[in-house]
Amino acid sequence: MINKLCKKITDLKAPIVVGLDPMLNYVPEEIKKAAFEQFGETLEGAGEAIWQFNKAIVDATADLIPAVKPQIAMYEQFGIPGLVAFKKTVDYCKEKDLVVIGDIKRGDIGSTSAAYAVGHVGKVQVGSKRYAAFDEDFVTVNPYLGSDGIQPFIDICKEENKGIFVLVKTSNPSSGEFQDQLVDGKPLYELVGKKVAEWGELHMGEAYSYVGCVVGATYPEMGKVLRKIMPKTFILVPGYGAQGGKAEDLVPYFNKDGLGAIINSSRGIIAAYKQEKYSKFGSENFADASRQAVLDMREDINSALAGK
Amino acid sequence: MINKLCKKITDLKAPIVVGLDPMLNYVPEEIKKAAFEQFGETLEGAGEAIWQFNKAIVDATADLIPAVKPQIAMYEQFGIPGLVAFKKTVDYCKEKDLVVIGDIKRGDIGSTSAAYAVGHVGKVQVGSKRYAAFDEDFVTVNPYLGSDGIQPFIDICKEENKGIFVLVKTSNPSSGEFQDQLVDGKPLYELVGKKVAEWGELHMGEAYSYVGCVVGATYPEMGKVLRKIMPKTFILVPGYGAQGGKAEDLVPYFNKDGLGAIINSSRGIIAAYKQEKYSKFGSENFADASRQAVLDMREDINSALAGK
Repeated sequence: MINKLCKKITDLKAPIVVGLDPMLNYVPEEIKKAAFEQFGETLEGAGEAIWQFNKAIVDATADLIPAVKPQIAMYEQFGIPGLVAFKKTVDYCKEKDLVVIGDIKRGDIGSTSAAYAVGHVGKVQVGSKRYAAFDEDFVTVNPYLGSDGIQPFIDICKEENKGIFVLVKTSNPSSGEFQDQLVDGKPLYELVGKKVAEWGELHMGEAYSYVGCVVGATYPEMGKVLRKIMPKTFILVPGYGAQGGKAEDLVPYFNKDGLGAIINSSRGIIAAYKQEKYSKFGSENFADASRQAVLDMREDINSALAGK
Repeated sequence: MINKLCKKITDLKAPIVVGLDPMLNYVPEEIKKAAFEQFGETLEGAGEAIWQFNKAIVDATADLIPAVKPQIAMYEQFGIPGLVAFKKTVDYCKEKDLVVIGDIKRGDIGSTSAAYAVGHVGKVQVGSKRYAAFDEDFVTVNPYLGSDGIQPFIDICKEENKGIFVLVKTSNPSSGEFQDQLVDGKPLYELVGKKVAEWGELHMGEAYSYVGCVVGATYPEMGKVLRKIMPKTFILVPGYGAQGGKAEDLVPYFNKDGLGAIINSSRGIIAAYKQEKYSKFGSENFADASRQAVLDMREDINSALAGK
C-alpha cells in the first residue's frame, strides 16, 4: 500500500491528501435541507448530510488526488449514524481507487491496540468467519504508550499490506508542551522519530516503510531535522493552509526523489467555496470549488518543489 | 459526576471499577450460539453476543460497584455493530445508576478534540436539535498533543458536569519508553502529572477535580510520587490482577480520606469463570463467578487499605 501511494503520487504529480473532515457548517444548506427532509434533524440526518457532501467532493477530485484522510472524530461526534457515514466514505473512496488514511489517532496497551488494529486495518474473527470492519489502508497512531502499543498495528499491517502514520510532532500550537521537552539534550519528538525509523525497518516497502509518521507543516525547522532522522519514513503533513503552513516551508519534508511526504489540506479544500478566493463558485458548486482548490494546492506544492 | 463517583465509592466501600472489555473468547458458548443463531456468524452476531455477556455481568454486579469502564476498542473491532453494543452497554449501565468511564484514549488538535468531546461527553448540534451521541460520564484522554488537545474536553465537561482521566503513566511494559524519559532530571510522566494537576484546577468538584488521571498498578513507586504531585486528582488505576498489580502496592495511590483512586479489573472479573479459582461456577453461571470475583477484589483492596 505504501508502494501504491508512492506510485499514485508520482503518476498524478500530487503529493497531497484531502482531509475529509466535514463539519455540518461546511455542508451547503441545500444538502442539509435534503438530508433533514428525509431523516429529520437527527443524527441520521447529519450522517446523511456529511456523506452526500463527501461524495460530491470525492467525485469532483478523485482523478487528481492519490489519497484521502477522513478524520474519524468528525463522524464519531454524530454517534453510530456518523460512523456509518465514515464507513460509507471509506468504502466509496476505495471504490474510486483512492488510498484511504483513517485519521483515528488510536493507541493503547498491547491487547487493546491489537483490537484497534484488527478493527481498522485488519480482520476480526467471528466464529468461522473473518470480517474487515472499517478497512482503511493506513491509520494514524499515537506513540505515548511505546512499542507494545505500536507493535500490534505493525503485525497486522504486515499481514494486510497496510500501514500506519505515527504521531511525532503534531501541528497544533501546544504540541511542544511535551513533544519538545529535551531528553538528553534532544527534543522528545526526535526520540520518537528515531523509534519510528526503527519500527519502520520491521515493515519495509520498496523505497519507503509502511510505518510513516506525522509531522505538522507548522514546524518546518523540525520537519527538516526529522526528515534526516527518518530517511525511509513517509511523512504525513497536516497543517498546510488553514493552520498556517506554507508550501515553500515544506520542501525539506521531501527527499530528493520528490517523495517521502504527503501534504494534507482539509478545510482549505472541502470548504473552499466559503473562501473569498472561490466565492464565484457559489454554494451550489461547492465541489467544483474543491476541485479548483486541489488544482491550486498541487500547483503551489509543485512550484515550491521545483524551486528546491 | 466526580462527587457522585466519590459518594458511591464511600457508600459501597468499593474503590473499584469493572472493565467491560469483552473478547469473543470470554463469552460462554451458549451465549455465542444464541447470538449466532439469531444473526449468523456476523458482526451483528458478535455485537449481540458481547452485549448479552455484558448485560448479565452488569446485572450480577451492579449493586456492588460504583462504576464500569467499557474499553471501546473491544467494540470498535466489530465495526458499527460492535459500537451499537458499546452504546447499549453505556445506556444500560447508566440506567443501573453506574458511573460510566468510556476508555477511549482519544486526543487530537483542538478542533478535533472538541469533536471527540462533543461525541462522548457532550451534545452535538444538528439543525435546531442537540443530541448526546455516546454519552459516557467520563472518558480517558491521551495527553501527547498538550493543553489545546485537552482544553476542549474540559470545556465540555464543565457544561455537562462530566470528567476525564488523562493518561500519565500507563500500565504496559513499554510505557517507560517515552513516559519515563528524564526532562530536567524528572521523568516525563511527572511533568504530565503536574499539568494534569493544573488542568484539574479549571474544573474542581468538592474534594476532587473532574480532571483525573491514569496511572498503572504495575508501577507502584511511580504511583506514590504521582499521588503527591496531584493531591486533588482522582487516579484511575488499570493493571490490577491479570496485568500483575497487587492490592498492597496500591495503598499509596489513595489519599488519607480513603479516596483518590479507583482500581480497575477487566479480565479478572468478566472472565472470572475461566479461572481455576472460580471454575466451580461453570460457564453457565459466568455472571455469578464475576460477582464473586468483585466481592473478592473489594475484600482484597479494602484489607490492604485497612492495613495502611
